Amino acid sequence: MIDAASETAAPTDAHASVHAPAATETAETPQDRLARAKEASRATARLTSHDKAHALEAIAQALEANAAVIIAANALDIERGRESGIGEGLIDRLRLDEKRVAALASAVRDVAGLADPVGQVVGGHRMPNGVTLEQVRVPFGVVGVIYEARPNVTVDIAALALRSGNASVLRGGSAARESNTVLVRVMRDALEGAGVTPEAIQTVDDFGRDGAKALMRGRGFVDVLVPRGSASLIETVVTESIVPVIETGAGNVHIVLDESAPDDWAREIVVNAKVQRPSVCNAVETVLVLRQAAPRLVPMIASALQSEGVAIHGDDMVAGMVAGVIPATEEDWATEYLSLDIAMKVVDTLDDALAHIRRYSTGHTESIVTTDTRNAERFLAEVDSAVVMANASTRFTDGGEFGFGAEVGISTQKLHTRGPMGLAELTSTKWLARGSGQTRA
Amino acid sequence: MIDAASETAAPTDAHASVHAPAATETAETPQDRLARAKEASRATARLTSHDKAHALEAIAQALEANAAVIIAANALDIERGRESGIGEGLIDRLRLDEKRVAALASAVRDVAGLADPVGQVVGGHRMPNGVTLEQVRVPFGVVGVIYEARPNVTVDIAALALRSGNASVLRGGSAARESNTVLVRVMRDALEGAGVTPEAIQTVDDFGRDGAKALMRGRGFVDVLVPRGSASLIETVVTESIVPVIETGAGNVHIVLDESAPDDWAREIVVNAKVQRPSVCNAVETVLVLRQAAPRLVPMIASALQSEGVAIHGDDMVAGMVAGVIPATEEDWATEYLSLDIAMKVVDTLDDALAHIRRYSTGHTESIVTTDTRNAERFLAEVDSAVVMANASTRFTDGGEFGFGAEVGISTQKLHTRGPMGLAELTSTKWLARGSGQTRA
Repeated sequence: MIDAASETAAPTDAHASVHAPAATETAETPQDRLARAKEASRATARLTSHDKAHALEAIAQALEANAAVIIAANALDIERGRESGIGEGLIDRLRLDEKRVAALASAVRDVAGLADPVGQVVGGHRMPNGVTLEQVRVPFGVVGVIYEARPNVTVDIAALALRSGNASVLRGGSAARESNTVLVRVMRDALEGAGVTPEAIQTVDDFGRDGAKALMRGRGFVDVLVPRGSASLIETVVTESIVPVIETGAGNVHIVLDESAPDDWAREIVVNAKVQRPSVCNAVETVLVLRQAAPRLVPMIASALQSEGVAIHGDDMVAGMVAGVIPATEEDWATEYLSLDIAMKVVDTLDDALAHIRRYSTGHTESIVTTDTRNAERFLAEVDSAVVMANASTRFTDGGEFGFGAEVGISTQKLHTRGPMGLAELTSTKWLARGSGQTRA
Repeated sequence: MIDAASETAAPTDAHASVHAPAATETAETPQDRLARAKEASRATARLTSHDKAHALEAIAQALEANAAVIIAANALDIERGRESGIGEGLIDRLRLDEKRVAALASAVRDVAGLADPVGQVVGGHRMPNGVTLEQVRVPFGVVGVIYEARPNVTVDIAALALRSGNASVLRGGSAARESNTVLVRVMRDALEGAGVTPEAIQTVDDFGRDGAKALMRGRGFVDVLVPRGSASLIETVVTESIVPVIETGAGNVHIVLDESAPDDWAREIVVNAKVQRPSVCNAVETVLVLRQAAPRLVPMIASALQSEGVAIHGDDMVAGMVAGVIPATEEDWATEYLSLDIAMKVVDTLDDALAHIRRYSTGHTESIVTTDTRNAERFLAEVDSAVVMANASTRFTDGGEFGFGAEVGISTQKLHTRGPMGLAELTSTKWLARGSGQTRA
């Protein structure tokens, strides 16, 4: 079961049936699209940086020129979303307006300006027998992405994939279906106008769940598959895929407030990490407070959060110190709220905090607030997450903030890449050996 | 179905039942072993390079001290292998004698001498707001390996995993069961003597197929799984695993003899690539000869190969030029012989050679013999394999030859690592962020 397809179950199915004839008319299968993407990837791999920048500029201009059409399509998605009662958080992620379409075009131009990773020599040497070895970055080939109802991902990923010489096959959330259909068409037309095969950007949205399934089973056609979205979407993709997957994004993010945590750092970091943009994966979900500091910190932090409209799900200790706390259950510790909710718990020792994180963290980002060097360094060494922080907001786990210029996602697995992924993470490498008749002794 | 378990089907099952009581007595499950490995990996991650080198030296000494026991156990495997009629190629890979046990110990010492990748800072910078970012190498945690009847892999992988701070869980081919049981026991005892938890090296051989299955389904416990062996073993592991996998090894390796290929380079490279060690993955399996050069090269190369005992499976053109050629079928082009067999085909153009490779290659290694720069560079650019060569033997695709000091396997996938894998490829990275109260604007 693909969560992206089932997130708004009833309207999705109804909607899918409306679109089904289009796919039937052309008698295309999702596999046909994968094969065309694979074929296109041989061409995109050989584009120069110049060619790719030119094609991306064409996409940016086309997005701007088609802003009205894009926003009109998006309005249909928003309307259907409201009718089916998806929350305001999802509506916010789904919405495109003039400013956001301009931001999409601007993001594509930013990607066009990034250094091209393809062809970069990352290693090499001359073997004792005179054979020269060179390890160079090459595109993956076909990058598949399964994501939720965020139309900006459609454009971001297609642009990042193209800049790194890859073809992309997209499978977005059905709630963004109208928006994605128009965005993909606009981008493909722009590619064609720029002399690049439009087959380099494919969608399988119109095949419903079969599209996602084809991506997950597309061995030999999909070189890497990136799920972006909820924990359940990621779990499904990881479990059902037989192609290489990069797990991204699910963030049950923790902040530990150590005994020595200064009032201002503790308050500012927790509030920023929860409130600045609660719907994204680097927002904090659970705060663990060391017992010794609890009387000082818990009421102060809770009050600051509550004045920002945050609902606190606390253990007995927290509930005893603060009015209006919702009693936390086991489920709260494991929940990625992605909303103005936070779990709060008092722990006896740093060991207990580390054990809690080991049990519930999704390995995305954790931060400690402390002025005790020993505790900070122990936390940095022992927490097994993609990004581990001392005295900084978890909201900094972001490709833009890390200086990558763009972000493909945040990898929470250990293979290939971990943490925010930039352009280079969408490439593989290849060894080139040049000899003059050498054989092995 | 795991090929490693089924490679000698009847004797395997009989053998498994003999050993079953051991597992039953302790009431252990394969999952228990994975959990103990995971727990141990928290300890191995924190070992210093010194600690790890000390533990590896203890293992090397223990292998030497127990050579007689190891060879005696291996003799049982060899005997059973002969009875069940496994080929001489497999027997060769299975065999341990005094010299080979000494080589195992020596290989462990080589690994102990390799630079420790853990803690290496591979990136980082100061963010504009003053937060410092550092990207450091960290162990994966638990490295699982599913492999065939090669006892040297048991020791190599355990040593490489430990040097890079990982715990290992091993699942070897059942034909090497006696050898592996003794090798793992010797290594675990050595670890304990060196003050390192023996749980850092685990085997699940005694659970039969359930052991392999536990590795493949061990999400949360197995950080990376490396299948080493035949194409069917790798296919099974890739298809059935829900943990991250690195595909290794299957090599349907091609050499293209261009029009301009000099006689001596062509002959020496093809003969070396086929004959020097036919049972390994970087041995050549198919030779493609450009039509223009066929009358000059085919009889000469064929004769050189035949005089080394190689059987030639050729197309009509080859069969018309050389006596004693076995007519090649479609299956020959797709076969990794791993024996003194070779497929040979005449192609009209370099385009045809590239198309043949695209269709049949497993993406391991291909080489062209040519003095035409344009053809060499085109081949290097367009062939989509882990290692692409001009004028060198494919046998050079090897961690030792590449100067890594050791080899975990040869990755034929594009994610994480491609080509020969060294120690660094058994690590992940982690971002450390150190701030002073910074929040995101």
